[in-house]
Amino acid sequence: MAAFAWSPLRALMKKAGAEIVSRAAVDKLMDYLEEYAKTLTGCALDIAKHSGRKKVTATDILLSIDNRQKMKIAISLI
Amino acid sequence: MAAFAWSPLRALMKKAGAEIVSRAAVDKLMDYLEEYAKTLTGCALDIAKHSGRKKVTATDILLSIDNRQKMKIAISLI
Repeated sequence: MAAFAWSPLRALMKKAGAEIVSRAAVDKLMDYLEEYAKTLTGCALDIAKHSGRKKVTATDILLSIDNRQKMKIAISLI
Repeated sequence: MAAFAWSPLRALMKKAGAEIVSRAAVDKLMDYLEEYAKTLTGCALDIAKHSGRKKVTATDILLSIDNRQKMKIAISLI
């Protein structure tokens, strides 16, 4: 099962100004968002475990978003 | 209306290994993904317009993902 439904994502793209969009564009964005959500969750889970918790909190998510942006920058500088 | 439904995102987080997750963590991830999707769509729309098209394609989405990562790096170096 896909994590995100097609029509609501298409509606969001329209709200962002994209009136005409190929089906493949919506599919591509959906795939990317799903992968990104999985990666961020994995990072948040690591942060939670490191803090001695089993429960992932909102601040774990926020920190993983922040960390991931910093890591991208660091990798690009290697 | 939210672009992404709560339960499928929660299921995706579980699939990524997060067994116990606060409601706020799911909400936070959802908000972030929605904002990110809007931004990426806006970038893709600009790319489509620049190419003289009204239709946003999958390659516009791919290029906007790639561009956005490069821009983040550039901003961090200012």
